Amino acid sequence: MTTAKRDTYTPETLLTVAVQVFIERGYDGTSMEHLSKAAGISKSSIYHHVTGKEELLRRAVSRALDELFGILDEEHARVGSAAERLEYVVRRMVEVLMAELPYVTLLLRVRGNTGTERWALERRREFDHRVADLLRAAAAEGDVRSDVEVRLATRLVFGMINSIVEWYRPDGLDGRGGSGGAGEREVVDAVARLVFGGLRKAS
Amino acid sequence: MTTAKRDTYTPETLLTVAVQVFIERGYDGTSMEHLSKAAGISKSSIYHHVTGKEELLRRAVSRALDELFGILDEEHARVGSAAERLEYVVRRMVEVLMAELPYVTLLLRVRGNTGTERWALERRREFDHRVADLLRAAAAEGDVRSDVEVRLATRLVFGMINSIVEWYRPDGLDGRGGSGGAGEREVVDAVARLVFGGLRKAS
Repeated sequence: MTTAKRDTYTPETLLTVAVQVFIERGYDGTSMEHLSKAAGISKSSIYHHVTGKEELLRRAVSRALDELFGILDEEHARVGSAAERLEYVVRRMVEVLMAELPYVTLLLRVRGNTGTERWALERRREFDHRVADLLRAAAAEGDVRSDVEVRLATRLVFGMINSIVEWYRPDGLDGRGGSGGAGEREVVDAVARLVFGGLRKAS
Repeated sequence: MTTAKRDTYTPETLLTVAVQVFIERGYDGTSMEHLSKAAGISKSSIYHHVTGKEELLRRAVSRALDELFGILDEEHARVGSAAERLEYVVRRMVEVLMAELPYVTLLLRVRGNTGTERWALERRREFDHRVADLLRAAAAEGDVRSDVEVRLATRLVFGMINSIVEWYRPDGLDGRGGSGGAGEREVVDAVARLVFGGLRKAS
């Protein structure tokens, strides 16, 4: 026998549960029934908070996107040489990814089947372009190599950063030796070192 | 009205179709019914070739794994300094990923719900360890920086390489400006330059 849990959710706490379910089952594979079961409240209680699962997706990816775009407004992303600003943005991207892990994970898995998903993909592309512009400016200022095409370099750097969602776990323990105990600071430094200096030892 | 296609499949051509369906629907979300429809032959015709969808998955990920492990047996992966061998392996990994794109894509999406998936994950981990060993040896020989922990560096480098499956399309056209026209050689060189030298201009 199951006892219906009293609905003590706010849109925010409901979002936390929904994001977890979306990540586990995929957004397409999640029904209101799944959300209701995971939250332990009735479907109509969920509808009391939101219009449906698409609103939950929109709130979740908005949170990730707002944090990412917020980086570009920070002082160190606006002042200094393009190379310095780029390094700041790369470091902050890694920090945001780790701090907002489930939200960024969901954002990165968006496919584009619904209006909200297409909007999220468009915003992601816009963010990518902003970072590519910074890379282009750093190359023009002569601080960044120009023998790798900007768009390709951006894709590869984003690829490295975004892959962190596959293994980073805040507690350093994911039961499979996941993060291998790497702390937040260590990951940020490692990415900055590899992205800017590569593996080769400075001679 | 649909006309049943005559079964002219071999296990190999059937595999090509199955891999496409697995990538589109996810392995868990694919039924024999889906495979039968995509191939245009009856389910019993499929059972004539294979025992079921798990055998198709096993053949597909085996193909990717065999190609990847094959790299480690090649001469340049066995002879030379560890740093030279590592650079060779990184370049070849990118080549294999692009040449065997659907198979590697599927391998990277394996989750671990079935025996075959757990076996594939285990083999992937084994490959990662072999590359990490090479990186460790290169650091010991003094050719690779030692201020980034080996396992973390391996994860990040694999993250960059594996992310290529998200956007690389052999024809350079994926309708979304995907590969941006980047050719195979250009991608291999870009990865090698970024992984070893980073974005910063050699001074």
